[in-house]
Amino acid sequence: MRTQVCIIGGGPSGMLLGQLLHKAGIDTIVLERTTKEHVLSRIRAGVLERGFVDLMRQAGVGERMDREGLPHDGAIISFDQDEIRIDFDALTGAHVLVYGQTELTRDLYEARESEGLPIIYQTDEVTIHDADTDSAYVTYATPDGEKHRIDCDYIAGCDGFHGVSRKTVPSNVRREYEKTYPFGWLGILAHTPPVHDELIYATSERGFALCSMRSHTLSRYYVQVPLTDTPEEWSDDDFWSELRRRIPPQAADRLVTGPSIEKSIAPLRSFVSEPMRWGRLFLCGDAAHIVPPTGAKGLNTAASDIHYLYEALVAAIIEKDASGLDHYSEKALARIWKAERFSWWMTTLLHHFPDDGAFEQRMRRAEFEFLGENRHAQAALATNYVGLPF
Amino acid sequence: MRTQVCIIGGGPSGMLLGQLLHKAGIDTIVLERTTKEHVLSRIRAGVLERGFVDLMRQAGVGERMDREGLPHDGAIISFDQDEIRIDFDALTGAHVLVYGQTELTRDLYEARESEGLPIIYQTDEVTIHDADTDSAYVTYATPDGEKHRIDCDYIAGCDGFHGVSRKTVPSNVRREYEKTYPFGWLGILAHTPPVHDELIYATSERGFALCSMRSHTLSRYYVQVPLTDTPEEWSDDDFWSELRRRIPPQAADRLVTGPSIEKSIAPLRSFVSEPMRWGRLFLCGDAAHIVPPTGAKGLNTAASDIHYLYEALVAAIIEKDASGLDHYSEKALARIWKAERFSWWMTTLLHHFPDDGAFEQRMRRAEFEFLGENRHAQAALATNYVGLPF
Repeated sequence: MRTQVCIIGGGPSGMLLGQLLHKAGIDTIVLERTTKEHVLSRIRAGVLERGFVDLMRQAGVGERMDREGLPHDGAIISFDQDEIRIDFDALTGAHVLVYGQTELTRDLYEARESEGLPIIYQTDEVTIHDADTDSAYVTYATPDGEKHRIDCDYIAGCDGFHGVSRKTVPSNVRREYEKTYPFGWLGILAHTPPVHDELIYATSERGFALCSMRSHTLSRYYVQVPLTDTPEEWSDDDFWSELRRRIPPQAADRLVTGPSIEKSIAPLRSFVSEPMRWGRLFLCGDAAHIVPPTGAKGLNTAASDIHYLYEALVAAIIEKDASGLDHYSEKALARIWKAERFSWWMTTLLHHFPDDGAFEQRMRRAEFEFLGENRHAQAALATNYVGLPF
Repeated sequence: MRTQVCIIGGGPSGMLLGQLLHKAGIDTIVLERTTKEHVLSRIRAGVLERGFVDLMRQAGVGERMDREGLPHDGAIISFDQDEIRIDFDALTGAHVLVYGQTELTRDLYEARESEGLPIIYQTDEVTIHDADTDSAYVTYATPDGEKHRIDCDYIAGCDGFHGVSRKTVPSNVRREYEKTYPFGWLGILAHTPPVHDELIYATSERGFALCSMRSHTLSRYYVQVPLTDTPEEWSDDDFWSELRRRIPPQAADRLVTGPSIEKSIAPLRSFVSEPMRWGRLFLCGDAAHIVPPTGAKGLNTAASDIHYLYEALVAAIIEKDASGLDHYSEKALARIWKAERFSWWMTTLLHHFPDDGAFEQRMRRAEFEFLGENRHAQAALATNYVGLPF
């Protein structure tokens, strides 16, 4: 087989890139390690920056998102009993859109399928060959054990943190930056109305909690837990009790509980791999960088990668101008590092770090109080939260 | 002897408070552990916030400061070879005034002496008695060994970090917060024109440097050094060479060097002791809190203490309303913690921390880049630098 751009990974990044390239008249093949059913069963984040929303519309897949997504003009940050509302709209003129990643991935699959564009599922042993030459190709095995080869002009590595793409960049040119955090997020999903119509980021001496949502009837809540905890140790009742203790009292009083339909613990990690280009291979999203979820940047950091890569591939393939590809890594990383900083800062501000002393705890409290009274500090936060420009 | 307010410590905080109280018709006695000559020989900071400047004027000792002080409308922050100018004036409508602490202390001594107000020098064994009763008093010994007693209504503890005042607050009601930093500042003073007409805060992989000044002909420069270094190990030539490597190249080219007239290493510390009141004893300035010098908050954090305490003492003594004294500790600490946070943040942003990994270093770089492009972040910095309102 031959294609112009081989996209490794059928998550939202790869699918969105494929849709954008298709609109520009560029052929793609998407390779997905699992099945469509598996991809669409993953529970992921749901806060979209304007940049991501614009890309969905540009790709022609924004219709349901625009209809069902919930615009959020602000968010609450609470510290012990005190609350600050960060008014995104007043501070930046922008908002974020709450629309589950599962939903937008479904929209992307439906669009790709309706156009009859190729997705190859259950690809095993995916290997990238000769990415640093002018004759790059990708091989993979199908479940029956048969080997296949795709020759291509470019490869988009959208296969996440554990994928093969990043590891294809030789270790002597690759530099990795990493920070792990001494806690995880225990999250549950429940068919209950959200406790508040905006997100509540809460911290107290008991640790972090987040009140989030996927829709008016589907709530997503999290509490910070030690990494040694397991979801099985936490009954639904334990979870709701702990959540109530960590959020502002008025919210705790309003909280509607119900049986969890999903419960899991995710570790928190900051990670960046440089460079994001190796010859004809371009890394996108989680394949190159991970943020802790505080600040909702996970999917959104992929958006600028997709945008830059899309523009650069169009210029290279249609206009025969490869300069965008030459600057892809540098441009993408400049924005990624700022999102990494913001996510690290929000994580540090809002979590209880077991090794921190009393001074560090007071620094967090002082930062919260400064934030509460200083519009510049609020605007700096809001500017990051709604998304820095591409 | 008897006075209304016994001020322990003849540094700038105690002397300024004494001058303000005198203008309000309140009697004070200042006790100073050393001599006038010693106090006026100390080399200290020289960047005054508007709040401190206003208090000096209010106390009637602002004339020379207003004539000789250098208004600074901005400052430079550099990271490796890159520079940002923080325009205080454009961002906040305010500026800071460069006027050496030694100079303003001299002005305060001249004012107190010209009014014939008491300062007792070389006081030894200063002890605060019965501060939690209505009959507080202070005892001390003169150099000849004679013991003296001052009965007073209130005691202002302005005797710095090592003074007796804080230690008088019983340890079971006192809570101390502290952070030490794994480096110090090697500073030199030289009769050379400053390299730039604004301060330059510089950081690079070699560490922090600061280009500062006391006047158009007196420069003050610093470089971050390990705490194990001694001033004797650093020749003037070594210092100038190291400074040149850490500041932007254009500044390095312009740097005028000369023999140092003072050279010393200061450790960096963040420290707060709560509460700042114990009965009739009120702590002010370094007696209750220390900041690392990055951000020039040292003397300025004393300003709000002096302001709040002055207002509260006038209300208590003249208007017989003690409510200001009751809220002194809480009000003073609310502003102190924000200054602590700002000083800690600027210190963290601009120093090389030996234990930090590559990720933490990139976080600092990302913060610098966000600061360079985001006016809100610049305004938040500038608002803190020129001084939060009292």
